[in-house]
Amino acid sequence: MEPVQIEAIVLDMVKKAKAASRSIAALPAAVKNAVLLDVGEALVAQQPFILQENAKDMADAKAKGMSEAMLNRLQITEQGILDMVQGLREVAALEDPVGEISEMRRRPSGITVGRMRAPLGVILMIFESRPNVTIDSAALCLKAGNAVILRGGSEALRSNLALAKVLQEVLAKHQVNPAIVQVLAFTDRGGVDCLLRQEAYIDLVIPRGGEGLIRAVTEKSRIPVLKHYKGVCHCFVDADADMDMAIPVILNSKAQRPSACNSLEALLVHREIAAEFLPRVAQALHKAGVRLLGCHSSCLLCDEMIEPAAESDWGREFLELAMVVKVVADIDEAMDYIARYGSQHTEIILTRSYERSQRFLREVDASAVMVNASTRFNDGGQFGLGAEIGISTTKLHAYGPMGLKELTTQKFIVYGMGETRA
Amino acid sequence: MEPVQIEAIVLDMVKKAKAASRSIAALPAAVKNAVLLDVGEALVAQQPFILQENAKDMADAKAKGMSEAMLNRLQITEQGILDMVQGLREVAALEDPVGEISEMRRRPSGITVGRMRAPLGVILMIFESRPNVTIDSAALCLKAGNAVILRGGSEALRSNLALAKVLQEVLAKHQVNPAIVQVLAFTDRGGVDCLLRQEAYIDLVIPRGGEGLIRAVTEKSRIPVLKHYKGVCHCFVDADADMDMAIPVILNSKAQRPSACNSLEALLVHREIAAEFLPRVAQALHKAGVRLLGCHSSCLLCDEMIEPAAESDWGREFLELAMVVKVVADIDEAMDYIARYGSQHTEIILTRSYERSQRFLREVDASAVMVNASTRFNDGGQFGLGAEIGISTTKLHAYGPMGLKELTTQKFIVYGMGETRA
Repeated sequence: MEPVQIEAIVLDMVKKAKAASRSIAALPAAVKNAVLLDVGEALVAQQPFILQENAKDMADAKAKGMSEAMLNRLQITEQGILDMVQGLREVAALEDPVGEISEMRRRPSGITVGRMRAPLGVILMIFESRPNVTIDSAALCLKAGNAVILRGGSEALRSNLALAKVLQEVLAKHQVNPAIVQVLAFTDRGGVDCLLRQEAYIDLVIPRGGEGLIRAVTEKSRIPVLKHYKGVCHCFVDADADMDMAIPVILNSKAQRPSACNSLEALLVHREIAAEFLPRVAQALHKAGVRLLGCHSSCLLCDEMIEPAAESDWGREFLELAMVVKVVADIDEAMDYIARYGSQHTEIILTRSYERSQRFLREVDASAVMVNASTRFNDGGQFGLGAEIGISTTKLHAYGPMGLKELTTQKFIVYGMGETRA
Repeated sequence: MEPVQIEAIVLDMVKKAKAASRSIAALPAAVKNAVLLDVGEALVAQQPFILQENAKDMADAKAKGMSEAMLNRLQITEQGILDMVQGLREVAALEDPVGEISEMRRRPSGITVGRMRAPLGVILMIFESRPNVTIDSAALCLKAGNAVILRGGSEALRSNLALAKVLQEVLAKHQVNPAIVQVLAFTDRGGVDCLLRQEAYIDLVIPRGGEGLIRAVTEKSRIPVLKHYKGVCHCFVDADADMDMAIPVILNSKAQRPSACNSLEALLVHREIAAEFLPRVAQALHKAGVRLLGCHSSCLLCDEMIEPAAESDWGREFLELAMVVKVVADIDEAMDYIARYGSQHTEIILTRSYERSQRFLREVDASAVMVNASTRFNDGGQFGLGAEIGISTTKLHAYGPMGLKELTTQKFIVYGMGETRA
């Protein structure tokens, strides 16, 4: 497509989204919930249409030689549709954050001031293969009173358009502006670039996918971006850690789902406990198929099970059954190491020391800092947010899993009786 | 200076700031408060040195033909120093936001999850002439547990360096890392550009000054920016407004300090009340020296006192004793107008209607939305934040006046007893 055409289409979309965002901002929760539940019913009713469109995407992807793993992500199954329906029900059941008023206080001037939670406005979601993100993200954005523009992977375009069509039909049926949810209907690279320049119309960009996609979006965007590049998560095993508790927590952190961003990538072991603990944990990890790369001391302590780590292994995000191991002098060395190599995602300490648990919680800078629990808990569902639209490791606006609250802002409201400023 | 030299100096600064931010993050409030109060004493004790350095800046600025208004901003007076001391005492008296824990809840898995307030890290302040910003901003950043890098106007360099020197000496006396507060010691334009690329070290940029400065910073920054471009504030006078209350509120909003961003720029009057109200308010504004530019209807209603507005006057930030006046059909037209021409800064409604007051508060998208009170109240001090480092009209992270809380973030913390994820 010509750049002029792309610009015209994008401008039309963002203007419609902005206008739609005003109409949804004031919508009562009852209407939003009815829409969400009806979308669930429509997805089931329109399943043949959705599967048919998805089959076309799948056929093209296969013809292009897409990998089995990628094809799995792209495919919409009957179970996948039921999962979307379940997700819609869960979002409908969440409390509406919009309109919540807090901190109202009378000021010396006589005015009463507080904060009212309000939608952000227009959100741009940029994501890769999985088409279910279309429904999951749209549901959260809509419940938080925002309009959303979705740009999924080019290989999933027909699937995403089919899902959006079902959604828009339900919106129209409820007399709600269908422009609340829009999918970019072409996949020219210029479309995203043009969207990322629309700071006058779009309030927030959330990219979801690999580090490459996220860096490219961040680099080009003139709009605030909430994102995490990667999860390089550490576990510090303190001198007095309960070893019987430590091993299952470490195993769960590393091996339960090694491809997840909240899986463990590095083990830091206090030198006082290393001689006893390292061989035990190494054996347990070995059994689970985890390859261990270690510092000189840790290799000496379990020479069979730990290979020497290369310099580039420190701070590496493995995302597979491999991790580094390092013996450290104390909690200060552990925290220095985390400050240097961590990605501000998830950091845990295993300890029985009250003092060191408190220091770790306070001094470690990460979106989630935990004592004696698996890194795998850093997740919106596990933390009780209900559903999550992503994880942020930037400290502005949101730090950690982002739920409905993070898709809103707070404005100041004032009740006066004719007060003027002295 | 050569770009290579600039880069070396900037990298050294940001690395020191990052290291310093870790040491200040865990500092108890007692130490931070002692530093703030001692800085106040040191400012008084070192007054001759500060005034002498400021005099050099003043002499250069005069020689360059700087305007009287700008010279006034640049000058540090004895009263100015007392004001800084007073500001330091006020910040010391504020509650420390760092470490506050909220929303701790036990989850079904057994873990206890909540949020702990933590510093942002390293903040870059970019500002224009007034040297007192050096002390005021450093005080707020320090109290919120952040390191700060200050880049003031080139004309105030010696004044800013003198103030920073006093501050750093007090920090050193308290065994606190002096790199917590650093002033960029040269004024080459390349210095700011290089700082704005240090996303690995700087967490937030706050520009304070004219729209030109703020747009330039936003355009170049790879780091999140909190800012407001301008304040185009509206007042909607509803059909049933109390006219005797309305006139003083409008006068105060427009004329108390017309150069402020929270001063009124546009008056929207319901057509049912216009014939009676417009001549009265126009006369009062006229008396206060306010020039009125109006729509066709408003000109007809008070032809002597309102001139026809040009198309470019709608949405204009006058920042002087001038404003536009428009007759509107109802609250919907008023809110449409505000959505189109407003700058999301401050919007007020004058009404006796319960229903319309609630609609206005809910539906108008601005950092502060008020009923029956002057726009001039949109201010950190007036809202009870204690002190403010700026106003944000971006909706991410902060919306409205920014105080100590807005200079922090919240991380998730977890207390476990060895839980693993199922």
